[in-house]
Amino acid sequence: MNHSIIRYIICRVLEFQALFLLLPGAVALSYREEAGWAYAATAAGCFLLGWLGKRLKPKSNAFFAREGFVTVSLSWIILSLTGALPFWLSGEIPEYTDALFETISGLTTTGSSILPNVEALSYCNLFWRSFTHWIGGMGVLVLILAILPLAGANNMYLMRAESPGPTVEKLVPRVRHSARILYGIYMAMTVLLILLLLLSGMNWFEAATLAFGTAGTGGFGILNSSIASYHLSSQVLITIFMILFGVNFNVYYLFLIRRGKEAFKFEEMRYYLLIIAAAIGLITWNVRGMFDSVWEALHHASFQVASIITTTGYATTDFALWPVFSQTVLVLLMFIGACAGSTGGGIKVSRIVILFKLVKNEISHMLHPKRVTQVRFGGHVVSKETWRAIQVFLFSYIVIFFTSLLAISLCNLDFTTNFTAVATTLNNVGPGLGLVGPSGNFDVFASPAKWVLMFDMLAGRLEIFPMLVLLASPAWRKG
Amino acid sequence: MNHSIIRYIICRVLEFQALFLLLPGAVALSYREEAGWAYAATAAGCFLLGWLGKRLKPKSNAFFAREGFVTVSLSWIILSLTGALPFWLSGEIPEYTDALFETISGLTTTGSSILPNVEALSYCNLFWRSFTHWIGGMGVLVLILAILPLAGANNMYLMRAESPGPTVEKLVPRVRHSARILYGIYMAMTVLLILLLLLSGMNWFEAATLAFGTAGTGGFGILNSSIASYHLSSQVLITIFMILFGVNFNVYYLFLIRRGKEAFKFEEMRYYLLIIAAAIGLITWNVRGMFDSVWEALHHASFQVASIITTTGYATTDFALWPVFSQTVLVLLMFIGACAGSTGGGIKVSRIVILFKLVKNEISHMLHPKRVTQVRFGGHVVSKETWRAIQVFLFSYIVIFFTSLLAISLCNLDFTTNFTAVATTLNNVGPGLGLVGPSGNFDVFASPAKWVLMFDMLAGRLEIFPMLVLLASPAWRKG
Repeated sequence: MNHSIIRYIICRVLEFQALFLLLPGAVALSYREEAGWAYAATAAGCFLLGWLGKRLKPKSNAFFAREGFVTVSLSWIILSLTGALPFWLSGEIPEYTDALFETISGLTTTGSSILPNVEALSYCNLFWRSFTHWIGGMGVLVLILAILPLAGANNMYLMRAESPGPTVEKLVPRVRHSARILYGIYMAMTVLLILLLLLSGMNWFEAATLAFGTAGTGGFGILNSSIASYHLSSQVLITIFMILFGVNFNVYYLFLIRRGKEAFKFEEMRYYLLIIAAAIGLITWNVRGMFDSVWEALHHASFQVASIITTTGYATTDFALWPVFSQTVLVLLMFIGACAGSTGGGIKVSRIVILFKLVKNEISHMLHPKRVTQVRFGGHVVSKETWRAIQVFLFSYIVIFFTSLLAISLCNLDFTTNFTAVATTLNNVGPGLGLVGPSGNFDVFASPAKWVLMFDMLAGRLEIFPMLVLLASPAWRKG
Repeated sequence: MNHSIIRYIICRVLEFQALFLLLPGAVALSYREEAGWAYAATAAGCFLLGWLGKRLKPKSNAFFAREGFVTVSLSWIILSLTGALPFWLSGEIPEYTDALFETISGLTTTGSSILPNVEALSYCNLFWRSFTHWIGGMGVLVLILAILPLAGANNMYLMRAESPGPTVEKLVPRVRHSARILYGIYMAMTVLLILLLLLSGMNWFEAATLAFGTAGTGGFGILNSSIASYHLSSQVLITIFMILFGVNFNVYYLFLIRRGKEAFKFEEMRYYLLIIAAAIGLITWNVRGMFDSVWEALHHASFQVASIITTTGYATTDFALWPVFSQTVLVLLMFIGACAGSTGGGIKVSRIVILFKLVKNEISHMLHPKRVTQVRFGGHVVSKETWRAIQVFLFSYIVIFFTSLLAISLCNLDFTTNFTAVATTLNNVGPGLGLVGPSGNFDVFASPAKWVLMFDMLAGRLEIFPMLVLLASPAWRKG
């Protein structure tokens, strides 16, 4: 393990964190909020630490999968630990554990909150809370790769460790260019959404924070009622953009290079849209009696489905009051999640489709042992390595899920609350059912349970392996 | 597909069903119960149908995996359909759907009941209900293989399709001898338990029915309070025998042939006992405040853990009133299940241990790509075929689980009830939590939901593939 390069990259991450923190600092200045000092102080501390640390140049550039996993998980932990400081220092979240929960929930684009009253926060804290979604959505190391000339060809290991999906492909041969294209698309779409939200009647603060939450598929709002009190046109805009940010960004790249025809044939996106349409249909039918018209039911069903499958977590209505069938559909969508290569969480549509195809293939093999068929996904044969990675992912996921469920059940809350709390954090969604439904919050859990859920949020966002490798002590001892 | 041999074997199954039905018929005679005519009539019908049908000899002996799967699933469906008739004809379960639910629950050794008041049943019906557990525990086709000279070498396909576990090994080279040894051990242990229960103060009817339920890891009792009102010594006996019937029967065979030393090294059994000990420890600690002494807590924890991990489903206390942590431990045990090659259900300890080992191996492979290690279980290298079969099993299991959850949620019962209802039926346990807890029953579900749960019980007992193959229409069209 090349410790020196890991240390070096983490110092660069701290410098970036200092830059990020200047933004809510500026917001504090413009609103003349006292809490601004907390941002200035944290930014200064991060910058100093990063600047001092990076003066020790790494001894070697050796950088492989192990280093990639460990760098990414340590970076995210350090971003969380430092990002939580302003909430705590400003006194608006008095417990550091809670501030950390809120920050991890932000960075991992989960959107689960421990705050019973969001509206009591100052503007700079609200801004920072939403901005962490935007940072975490596309990833910090991908951003650094786009800007800095880091290690070299092995940057791919960093990108793979931070980006979601069973296979991470470069759009273009160079990692740095790929990272730039991704962030370019991400930024352009965010700006477009901000402009459209302004047109729909929001002020700039609302437009910016909600666009960050939508782009990162995060889900932190700035009102206790989430999105319910905004104008219908704003709600529809957010519905559409949530779905758009849940699509594999490769699709947008294909449009950019004028290969739109291929974009429409993108297999994962087709399944993703199909699942969304089916879920909206089922829920609209199930809740039609609860609203004045079928159109209103369709609107709320669409918003909630888009919000949950993309693992955003905004709400226009308290779906914990819907019939159990609709709730169960939403819980299933939490697990499915968005497309690989998007900003969304969950298991990912591609993994699930590949699993279905492989199982179908295996069953046909059991019945007709002589027939040999290969499984194809997105135009390629699914490689043995992809297949193995998916299995290991899925099984580790199940083990983490049930271990967490067991651990947090010590708080003696009801089974539905526990089950959906783990589901919503491990899949980076936000709200669950029961006490952690859209109108509840995660402060019902005791501190130890919050730590378990924080681990789940990080494991979910980084797709388990980086956290597992960090925990696997042999990785530290040897080499 | 060789339809004629499938038809032939199913006719033999019907003849055996006629024989089985004579036993509760005899019970009716001895208690002079009118309901006896229902058993006589059904037995006569089954025998006639089987006898007539088998006169058409099969055209060919070709018998492969497909035929094995289809024969087993069809046999179980026909045993259920005919086995439900006496309950319904006697008028004691007025709806045929309910009678079928009860019969499938019996044969699959689930033990979930739709009856709010078991004690209202006549003796012959109570006897039949418990006896179906005993038949289903070791399997009907295994019994037929032990007695009749069927097709030939390819009998292995029948045994594999009916016996639980990722790999089914013959104890001795000939399938017929293996089947005889298995049934011999099964019968001897059942008789021993009956004798011990008689010594502990039960009458012969109680001893026989409860021994059938224990041996088959079923869980139907003859009192509304399940096992709670019996003497402590009976409860302890049942605890011990539940655990014994959850052990891979190969272990007992090793004892029989005086290779007891190897038996103690049996890897799956060691993990199984380890999980049991850990679960008893955790629950005893968690519920210690609810009982007069730690010993009482230990007794109830042991009984419930043994009952749930072996998927029996007896209860000495209403664990739905225990703290949520203990309930969650029990729910996890439902999924783990007993050992392969036992009469218990669930995913099976061996599958779970193999999965853990393979994931550990894969992660080490990701970190050290040059290091090649093989995964060993029970002294053998885990073959690629076993690994693939486990994956397909697990993924089909997850798909069936969530599809069922979605379907039964249309009844609009609470999430906990729905989740544990599917868990308890798919794993062949018996009781769940919420409305289907130890003091509740499955009559809370509407008929369509009952059909879903019936499918789950059969899919769980036959370990999914036979039911999937039966549903996969291409298997019917081609060949």
